[in-house]
Amino acid sequence: MGNSEFRGIFPYLVTPLDEKGRLKEQVLADLVDHLIRKGVHGLTPLGSTGEAPYLDWETKRRTIEVVVKATAGRVPVVAGVCNTSTQGAVREAAETEKLGVDGILTLMPSYFPLNDQQVVAHFRSIAQAVACPITLYTNAKFQTWDFTVEALKRLTEEPNIMYLKDASGNVGKIMSIVTTLGQRLKIFSDTSSVPLFMFLIGGVGWMSGPACVIPVQSIELYEAARRNRWEEAAELQKKQWPLNVAFQRYSLSACVKAGLEMQGFPVGPPMPPQKALDAEGRRAVEGILRSIGAL
Amino acid sequence: MGNSEFRGIFPYLVTPLDEKGRLKEQVLADLVDHLIRKGVHGLTPLGSTGEAPYLDWETKRRTIEVVVKATAGRVPVVAGVCNTSTQGAVREAAETEKLGVDGILTLMPSYFPLNDQQVVAHFRSIAQAVACPITLYTNAKFQTWDFTVEALKRLTEEPNIMYLKDASGNVGKIMSIVTTLGQRLKIFSDTSSVPLFMFLIGGVGWMSGPACVIPVQSIELYEAARRNRWEEAAELQKKQWPLNVAFQRYSLSACVKAGLEMQGFPVGPPMPPQKALDAEGRRAVEGILRSIGAL
Amino acid sequence: MGNSEFRGIFPYLVTPLDEKGRLKEQVLADLVDHLIRKGVHGLTPLGSTGEAPYLDWETKRRTIEVVVKATAGRVPVVAGVCNTSTQGAVREAAETEKLGVDGILTLMPSYFPLNDQQVVAHFRSIAQAVACPITLYTNAKFQTWDFTVEALKRLTEEPNIMYLKDASGNVGKIMSIVTTLGQRLKIFSDTSSVPLFMFLIGGVGWMSGPACVIPVQSIELYEAARRNRWEEAAELQKKQWPLNVAFQRYSLSACVKAGLEMQGFPVGPPMPPQKALDAEGRRAVEGILRSIGAL
Amino acid sequence: MGNSEFRGIFPYLVTPLDEKGRLKEQVLADLVDHLIRKGVHGLTPLGSTGEAPYLDWETKRRTIEVVVKATAGRVPVVAGVCNTSTQGAVREAAETEKLGVDGILTLMPSYFPLNDQQVVAHFRSIAQAVACPITLYTNAKFQTWDFTVEALKRLTEEPNIMYLKDASGNVGKIMSIVTTLGQRLKIFSDTSSVPLFMFLIGGVGWMSGPACVIPVQSIELYEAARRNRWEEAAELQKKQWPLNVAFQRYSLSACVKAGLEMQGFPVGPPMPPQKALDAEGRRAVEGILRSIGAL
Repeated sequence: MGNSEFRGIFPYLVTPLDEKGRLKEQVLADLVDHLIRKGVHGLTPLGSTGEAPYLDWETKRRTIEVVVKATAGRVPVVAGVCNTSTQGAVREAAETEKLGVDGILTLMPSYFPLNDQQVVAHFRSIAQAVACPITLYTNAKFQTWDFTVEALKRLTEEPNIMYLKDASGNVGKIMSIVTTLGQRLKIFSDTSSVPLFMFLIGGVGWMSGPACVIPVQSIELYEAARRNRWEEAAELQKKQWPLNVAFQRYSLSACVKAGLEMQGFPVGPPMPPQKALDAEGRRAVEGILRSIGAL
Repeated sequence: MGNSEFRGIFPYLVTPLDEKGRLKEQVLADLVDHLIRKGVHGLTPLGSTGEAPYLDWETKRRTIEVVVKATAGRVPVVAGVCNTSTQGAVREAAETEKLGVDGILTLMPSYFPLNDQQVVAHFRSIAQAVACPITLYTNAKFQTWDFTVEALKRLTEEPNIMYLKDASGNVGKIMSIVTTLGQRLKIFSDTSSVPLFMFLIGGVGWMSGPACVIPVQSIELYEAARRNRWEEAAELQKKQWPLNVAFQRYSLSACVKAGLEMQGFPVGPPMPPQKALDAEGRRAVEGILRSIGAL
Repeated sequence: MGNSEFRGIFPYLVTPLDEKGRLKEQVLADLVDHLIRKGVHGLTPLGSTGEAPYLDWETKRRTIEVVVKATAGRVPVVAGVCNTSTQGAVREAAETEKLGVDGILTLMPSYFPLNDQQVVAHFRSIAQAVACPITLYTNAKFQTWDFTVEALKRLTEEPNIMYLKDASGNVGKIMSIVTTLGQRLKIFSDTSSVPLFMFLIGGVGWMSGPACVIPVQSIELYEAARRNRWEEAAELQKKQWPLNVAFQRYSLSACVKAGLEMQGFPVGPPMPPQKALDAEGRRAVEGILRSIGAL
Repeated sequence: MGNSEFRGIFPYLVTPLDEKGRLKEQVLADLVDHLIRKGVHGLTPLGSTGEAPYLDWETKRRTIEVVVKATAGRVPVVAGVCNTSTQGAVREAAETEKLGVDGILTLMPSYFPLNDQQVVAHFRSIAQAVACPITLYTNAKFQTWDFTVEALKRLTEEPNIMYLKDASGNVGKIMSIVTTLGQRLKIFSDTSSVPLFMFLIGGVGWMSGPACVIPVQSIELYEAARRNRWEEAAELQKKQWPLNVAFQRYSLSACVKAGLEMQGFPVGPPMPPQKALDAEGRRAVEGILRSIGAL
């Protein structure tokens, strides 16, 4: 498949939902088209920003179909697979692949803590159930497990485990992963504090919720880095930083959805128990988007 | 309904599963009958020990049906409702009530952190969707949220929110809950370190995974406390403590399932990514069960 | 020495200081006399409440002298030894013993994390430097180390390590210590959430900052427990609990010092960087002390 | 004073001590001379690596005297001031300044947690007690407090608070500090995972324990960054990273002291309760120093 090498800016797509939790298909298709026209290098539906841990399979399945169809092969689609049990994750991964995605991003919400052996077995099972490239995802803040460097090393025995997206912002751990596995595992940046650092030590791209609302600015930072214009990239990262500060104070999906509504995409509120931004939060996000030139 | 006042020992039932994750219905029915004959005061399927966060709705629905039928009204059945989204939890709660349970225990696995307002709205929605008594459950170790005393106070505005099971083992927080809401909210003990303390400050019972394998010993401790034989209860709690130490070192479902297999109930392994106890763990659990007189 | 068996209520004495950080010796002597007349079973200067981590050796030395003299053998004095380095702790312990105390309580503020081997070596060195009984103290919230059960087991090889005061409020850990080492190590309760629990599983007493302001009520709880009047003890603990809630919201030394000022002991403010209670905090503490009958 | 602008590589000097904890003055003087000849841009005695939290004032005073004398004005000396109480810190700061240092680095080991108001008051008092430039230091892993961006903003009202060394490795927080206060507060890098990132977003230098054993390599990385040879700097940071991994596994002072012994500086063991590296740790450190070209 031509779309099997992923690099650049991959917005974490929000999942547009109405008040009853039903997918707003046309809004999603419009957003996909808009982002591709803005120049993004790929799309990642059903990540954290896409509220995957809160959606049932029917909604997730339909989300993938809409994104794949609207994308029409213009950029790669890397869809999230999110399930607490190994059996569920394997089943979802296989069905997701059949829907025509170019790759899979794995999330594992958790309950009981897991050791390395359990973590490795889980993701190995997923990898063996599909043929497409897999991007491992981890966000230790929201889980009771995390990848150790040793677990990642064992997981690279699976040939289609090709990418990692580490949301820790823990640059020490990232240094250890890059110096140990950097030849084998391609790394995507997450939090807006680290893309610059990631690109400098060899990262291939940035999967990002905020990129839904600032696609052009995200691409600008990526391109500056790719052309080794590092001081310029540093200035761009600093300029975008206030948006991330606001997004951390409020909630990620709520912020990205509020920003998209301001930009004319009626993506609706986040799924409860999450709540939509209140008036103060909307003002804060609006002010920052204006200052960045995204409104 | 006669079974609406809950007190005493409520084993957290394991969910017997075969290697493919299919419910072993007869084993479950046998276990239910066995525990009732041993004298337990109620049954709680689909709690943490029941691996609720790892099961799909079909398996959960069938588990409730089997437990309700095998119980045949002899003791109250308080079934777990476990869903990350509010809509999903409301739907599960309503369907669970229709299956004939006497009460509901609410678990909320989580991803994004939640504030008090979000937490209160979630559980209020569940409470308003059913008529039966609700036991709020929280286990801060495995979640990105927890009940504050203030949130609990607001939740007691819902008349059917009647019980709380706090798994924190945080006796300071429990003191604050009891001194503030003790007249309104009945409290069940969780971890084996605290039943004695809980009973002494007014707790009504003990919902417990280990009670599946040591029902008689758990009842003995409860009865000693209920008859104000506190020194005797203290000695019993100390005697049972090593079992809990082992259960913490290994994993809860794996330990309870291993112990039940030793007692002749072929409940199978826990759901992956959890793993069955290894040989060393089985020896440890076996030794302790023998010393307690449970084998 | 007749005073080598410690049991009952040991107030953690505040260290009365003027605005310049100088010891108010007469106030300290008066407080000592007052507490002994109220019936406390021992005195513990230079614990956490005594701000030991903030005081220089001269102030600490003089504090011990004043307390020993004012006590005049009426109750045992167990003085805190608080030093980050082993050499410093050993030197302080030896000098403290020479000042005529009946026992030593060991605090170890910390910087770099310590493993079991380092922890054991530190406290072993102190134990071997003195002949008097030692009470090990640990407060994991404020340290980068903690006692494991295994480390405690090794430390009981030192014959004069006889007592433990665990400030964790972690009842699971306390259960493990009591069931493993309960015959060898006598345990004092700390936080006001656990004395009842501690007495029931065999604790010998309660070392407590709040006991400076509620000595009579603390003794009442201890005596109810000692006479196996457990329900009465439970009611007393619940009644006193709001004081602890206030003390946690504000800062411990600031609260105890404010309460003592209200009772007529001009003990002064806590050492900076700690701050005295503000007006709102004083009102809260005053209201609770009144409701408990301590004002 | 000509030495009031600090930039570049400042090794965190170890404090050479014999088995009895006495300063090895000649070894310290030799190390100072060696590092200056290797090209370091400044020296920082009595930081964490210098074991400041474990030393008494006499040893600290003498350490400063030896370093100031051996340096003889060739590079700036920024000495650590480390005290838990405000009064103690103020007194130490004033005396340290009199000993002829060019600047002060503030450490605050802690016990009770501190809020912003308390933190600000503490460091403001120190700043007002001296005329020399102050470098604020914070290492949240070892403390019960940390600087918020708001607290830092208020502290920049003191004109001589000019530098910050943040040991968190939390790049998100560093982004917030730089974008908010970057014009006012000059920032030094700490942990070896972040110098590259720090230099790129405007950091002025690197205060580093490992720089005692790899001064040349640290300078090389700094110079590559200063000349905007970012890809080269990235490769150098990756090459040095394994040293940091080893230093985290064992203990910092123990590792730096072991490395210096291998390089011919008999700096002795760290102060107990810290322990010297065991044979395995020494082998690990030796192997890495060889691979980096530092042995």
